Amino acid sequence: MNKFEIKENYKKLLKEKLSLDLTRGQPSKEQLKLSEPLDQILKNKFFFEGEDIRNYGLIKGLNSARKLGGMLLGVNFKNVIANGTSSLNLTFMALQALLFKGLNGSPWIKNKKISFLCPVPGYDRHFSLLESLGIIMINVPLTGEGPDMDIVEKLVAKDKTIKGIICVPKHSNPTGETYSSKVLERLAKLPKKASKDFMIFYDNAYSVHDFKKSKKLGNIFNLCKKFKTSNNIIMFASTSKITFAGAGISFLASSEKVLTNFLKFYDKTRVGSDKINQAKHAKFFKNKKSLEDHMSKHAVLISKKFEIVENYLSKLPPEFGTWTKPTGGYFVSFDSKPGKAKKIYNLCELAGLKLTKVGATFPYNKDPHDQNIRISPSKISNSELKKAMEVFIISVMLAG
Amino acid sequence: MNKFEIKENYKKLLKEKLSLDLTRGQPSKEQLKLSEPLDQILKNKFFFEGEDIRNYGLIKGLNSARKLGGMLLGVNFKNVIANGTSSLNLTFMALQALLFKGLNGSPWIKNKKISFLCPVPGYDRHFSLLESLGIIMINVPLTGEGPDMDIVEKLVAKDKTIKGIICVPKHSNPTGETYSSKVLERLAKLPKKASKDFMIFYDNAYSVHDFKKSKKLGNIFNLCKKFKTSNNIIMFASTSKITFAGAGISFLASSEKVLTNFLKFYDKTRVGSDKINQAKHAKFFKNKKSLEDHMSKHAVLISKKFEIVENYLSKLPPEFGTWTKPTGGYFVSFDSKPGKAKKIYNLCELAGLKLTKVGATFPYNKDPHDQNIRISPSKISNSELKKAMEVFIISVMLAG
Repeated sequence: MNKFEIKENYKKLLKEKLSLDLTRGQPSKEQLKLSEPLDQILKNKFFFEGEDIRNYGLIKGLNSARKLGGMLLGVNFKNVIANGTSSLNLTFMALQALLFKGLNGSPWIKNKKISFLCPVPGYDRHFSLLESLGIIMINVPLTGEGPDMDIVEKLVAKDKTIKGIICVPKHSNPTGETYSSKVLERLAKLPKKASKDFMIFYDNAYSVHDFKKSKKLGNIFNLCKKFKTSNNIIMFASTSKITFAGAGISFLASSEKVLTNFLKFYDKTRVGSDKINQAKHAKFFKNKKSLEDHMSKHAVLISKKFEIVENYLSKLPPEFGTWTKPTGGYFVSFDSKPGKAKKIYNLCELAGLKLTKVGATFPYNKDPHDQNIRISPSKISNSELKKAMEVFIISVMLAG
Repeated sequence: MNKFEIKENYKKLLKEKLSLDLTRGQPSKEQLKLSEPLDQILKNKFFFEGEDIRNYGLIKGLNSARKLGGMLLGVNFKNVIANGTSSLNLTFMALQALLFKGLNGSPWIKNKKISFLCPVPGYDRHFSLLESLGIIMINVPLTGEGPDMDIVEKLVAKDKTIKGIICVPKHSNPTGETYSSKVLERLAKLPKKASKDFMIFYDNAYSVHDFKKSKKLGNIFNLCKKFKTSNNIIMFASTSKITFAGAGISFLASSEKVLTNFLKFYDKTRVGSDKINQAKHAKFFKNKKSLEDHMSKHAVLISKKFEIVENYLSKLPPEFGTWTKPTGGYFVSFDSKPGKAKKIYNLCELAGLKLTKVGATFPYNKDPHDQNIRISPSKISNSELKKAMEVFIISVMLAG
């Protein structure tokens, strides 16, 4: 396409008065339908593991739900607490417990300044959560196989206000990368170089969300045990992108010491989580096989969306940008030429296509190179997605 | 009974090797059974008010769930946010938002010292929550119709580190008292005398929990609007003691300004609450009548328990103590002669009866007169309750 053709095509799209949305990583209706049997699964049986799941109590959650969490996180269920919705809320609770109680040292709140390392581009909700608590965020580049550990190690050794790093180690949001064994090993050793009360926030949100053959993620908790840093890591997972996005259950895992301290704070803030929903999930996923079967149904539905995105992006001449080719998760990360992302965003918006705000994938909403755009193709229908990608690539070319 | 007979009776009870529990205000199995239809009520219909309730979103909750909250709290649904479990967690979230964001002024965290007025005896979980956040608690006596407002007004005028008061205005836990119109009016005016960012925490946990004809509670929010203090009150309610204790939904209500500020913090900590459970509750309680009918079934079951407690306590000679005769809620508050509560507790424990820890109804677990014991008769079976009360009154007499 020459410049003239690009402009003409864009004008045509404008006339279509589209209303399309690629902003959020939400499951599609078809994906949500896969879990509908969950709701009716109890059949008026409210006793489970000897517990009356209708009543108060059991702050750690039902053991069978904790086992599901253990399956997702690769740890023993005794290291897991099961909650209701959502892992974001457990992440908040872990930060709170670190601030006001301390989990592996003194309460963080005693420090004037608390900083966190944030591999970028990353999950926007992690960043806005840290910001809301006044925690200073420091960008660290991702390499395609996890954060640049040379930089990470230097920073934590030098700056003891750095109390943590927040990671999505598999099918990372939005880059889709999975941390390599080398990165995991250096990450597991990292607390030895850092502030004593350093904490790795390990949000394994997409641990079973492959839609193609994917790189396996190592078991960081085993590495932490080996390097005696298991009091310096908290892991998170949820069923939000496995069952019902808005009504899943979530998990927090760590060492016995950290969990014991965490519970002393956590149990002041609630009497227990929704055990009815926990029991439903435990019944729905009786074993690893039932979970795998369920996720393979998701894979069929979602892989089609990513094929469409890739088909359209592959039509772009290489000088316009680069993009990721994920094998799992919910996102494609597109990098335009520096300084072009906002322009692309605006052109898309004008043509009726909503994109995740430029900058959202960085702390403080500041993309230093104005080039990253997160594409979330999961929720939209296939036909709408095709139209959305048409708008996107025309806008990219027009901006360039 | 003479001293010898009391001792003999106690010895006989010891031989029975009992295992009884009057510690927590939990609904009984029979009460929980009343709400079982709730779980199957959706019948695979997951679209509600035009929303896909399986997916993410709707941070304020479903409108119909907010309306249920409005019914419980006597406010318009637009002033309500509906959450999942539990109101204790919303109380925590409100404190967090006040600390880190500020709702009607600057973030509280900027202050070196934050104090709260705590009417006593009160709800143990309120006190442990405040303590976990390092908030200083100041006891204020209850009068039988709410806190002693003379003392409250003097304290807030004098000490600007006092940023709030935490109340259970109806069938108060554990005294069972309901705040009078006079107290409500003075409470609604209180922020004018206090620190500008003062906040009334108004936990209306038992708003529809009468089991006998009860004093009506006035509408404090209307009073606050009249006195222009509606930015100085946050109200809480939940269905924990209406439907399933461990799987209810909860509500937070305040002025538009406070809610707007609250949401700016709250929406960083979660993507939304469990709308499936909200929809179930909204369908289960279509209108005020269905809620009232449901609560009258609770009343039948629970009033029996309180009759038993009263029957036994009425056998105690008056010199041994005083106790409340609630018309709703979940507790009887027993005051022994000063200095006897721990002794009674220990005698009961030895005979196999667990009571709420002495002191739990006071901040820092310190009952200044060692005399208050909270009796929670709701969960235990009627026959066990009779035995428990036998142990209790014998122990009271033996301690005296």
